[in-house]
Amino acid sequence: MAVYTDVTDDALAAFLTQYDIGTMVAFRGVAEGVENSNYSLRTTGGDFFLTLYEKRVDPNDLPWFIGLMEHLAQHGLVCPQPVRGRDGSALRRLCGKHAAITTFLPGVWPRRVRQEHCGPVGATLAQLHRAGADYPPNRANALGPASWTPLLERCRTQADEVQSGLAAELDQALAAILPAWPASLPTGHIHADMFPDNVFFLDQRLSGVIDFYFAATDLLAYDIAVCLNAWCFESDFSFNVTKGRALLAAYHAVRPLSDQEQAALPVLCQGAAIRFLLTRLYDWLNHPPGALVTRKDPLEYLRRLRFHMSATDGRAYGI
Amino acid sequence: MAVYTDVTDDALAAFLTQYDIGTMVAFRGVAEGVENSNYSLRTTGGDFFLTLYEKRVDPNDLPWFIGLMEHLAQHGLVCPQPVRGRDGSALRRLCGKHAAITTFLPGVWPRRVRQEHCGPVGATLAQLHRAGADYPPNRANALGPASWTPLLERCRTQADEVQSGLAAELDQALAAILPAWPASLPTGHIHADMFPDNVFFLDQRLSGVIDFYFAATDLLAYDIAVCLNAWCFESDFSFNVTKGRALLAAYHAVRPLSDQEQAALPVLCQGAAIRFLLTRLYDWLNHPPGALVTRKDPLEYLRRLRFHMSATDGRAYGI
Repeated sequence: MAVYTDVTDDALAAFLTQYDIGTMVAFRGVAEGVENSNYSLRTTGGDFFLTLYEKRVDPNDLPWFIGLMEHLAQHGLVCPQPVRGRDGSALRRLCGKHAAITTFLPGVWPRRVRQEHCGPVGATLAQLHRAGADYPPNRANALGPASWTPLLERCRTQADEVQSGLAAELDQALAAILPAWPASLPTGHIHADMFPDNVFFLDQRLSGVIDFYFAATDLLAYDIAVCLNAWCFESDFSFNVTKGRALLAAYHAVRPLSDQEQAALPVLCQGAAIRFLLTRLYDWLNHPPGALVTRKDPLEYLRRLRFHMSATDGRAYGI
Repeated sequence: MAVYTDVTDDALAAFLTQYDIGTMVAFRGVAEGVENSNYSLRTTGGDFFLTLYEKRVDPNDLPWFIGLMEHLAQHGLVCPQPVRGRDGSALRRLCGKHAAITTFLPGVWPRRVRQEHCGPVGATLAQLHRAGADYPPNRANALGPASWTPLLERCRTQADEVQSGLAAELDQALAAILPAWPASLPTGHIHADMFPDNVFFLDQRLSGVIDFYFAATDLLAYDIAVCLNAWCFESDFSFNVTKGRALLAAYHAVRPLSDQEQAALPVLCQGAAIRFLLTRLYDWLNHPPGALVTRKDPLEYLRRLRFHMSATDGRAYGI
């Protein structure tokens, strides 16, 4: 939950004069989103969302994210649409931060994942991958496999404070995962963070996807692995193969998975688990006092990682 | 900023069936309000606000707060209107907490107070006092003068960690304030927390007042003293007498202040400053690790208190 930058009413009113969306009616900080400051904004022209980009987002990447959202929306994916100002730009500065207004997306993210959510998630992820296919620029995945060893190094001295033997277990996992990482699977633009709080449902239907600020160009099937981690484990960290099957089958119906992609699912899931484990571990160990964000337990991903380390092929996930 | 209780989409959908306001369209945690969990809620019937009452609110007081808001709204004050369910009740349980839906209030709270805000605040406070006059039940002010000495005792051993000599300075202030506390000024229902973040403006006009969960029955002029503290100091803690005059004159035009009330302003302002100083000090010293709320600096109110201790009559405030 996050509002790091407080926007004064005067500054906002001045900001809105640069758009054709009317004048301010209501403006409230939103207690969601970890990386940026988010506000729901109502104007005389409708409902919008205002995001101020905080330190974790590289300003140089913003045009790519904005362009990707526009491209995906034009190709039928329901996601926030960047609103362009009178000058044609969707990005400008507010209160010293880079800022953008996007359209309001109805729906509610599922606090408790049910099996019925998983098919639509798989189908939508495949649509996202197809819709992104002809968005030309690439963005390297800063949290891809090459980042995991350095990230572990930054946590090494304190990792065992979180759980005894953690650093050694992660060393061992990385020693298995990195050499086995698939080199030649299909690539494209991936969401890379399609967790339940980034997917809205309305009347039992998936109504939109938000938060593209981890999106990057990487193995498409890695995005599936992120979703299997995020959507298909129960609260006791057991993998729900019925959910996995629903997600994978629905994905496959929209964008068929090759044999190589199916065979790579265990290592991709291992990688996805270790990626979220490591960033959570880093945040856990470097939590600033007075921070507004609840720390997420890294060990939830150690439990997932162990499941994936024991998986031998795609059948573990319901293929 | 606060969402302490996460409401699942299933629980919310079931909750909404008890109302005649349609089905869920959107639902987002709001990063405002310190005491309770707040959500903005859009249904097919319109826009609403959902509050889950957390531990600081005594459930026995809820019917009084809800009744007061209904009464004030019926008497012309713009404030959230509790929405009654099909059973006629505006209060029910959700996710193990007491919960209420209220109407959406347009407007934006002023992040930077300007002189033009202060007149409308004074006038609206007086309207609130008049509108509340015939709401029969009383609620004792749990944070009134009788609470200040016990609150200081609970902070005493650690108070000087915040500022050397703080406990002694507060002892001295209370020794002056409590015996001088006025006994016979007009009483009624007061908001008791009418800070800028609880007052909305729209198109330069005051558009509503929110958050009645500190409201109580107490000296009406004490509520003015709270507002003088909250609205009329500059960021360097100097008192802006132009703002004070605007606030007091506008109040007086709606509900004339007696000579006794005017004369009591210094001690009432001292009391209001020490009340916020003490609760902030307590929260400062008892801030749980991982809390979602930013601590507010108690010493800001020491600066205000010192100003009020030097005031001799209402002229210090612009009368």
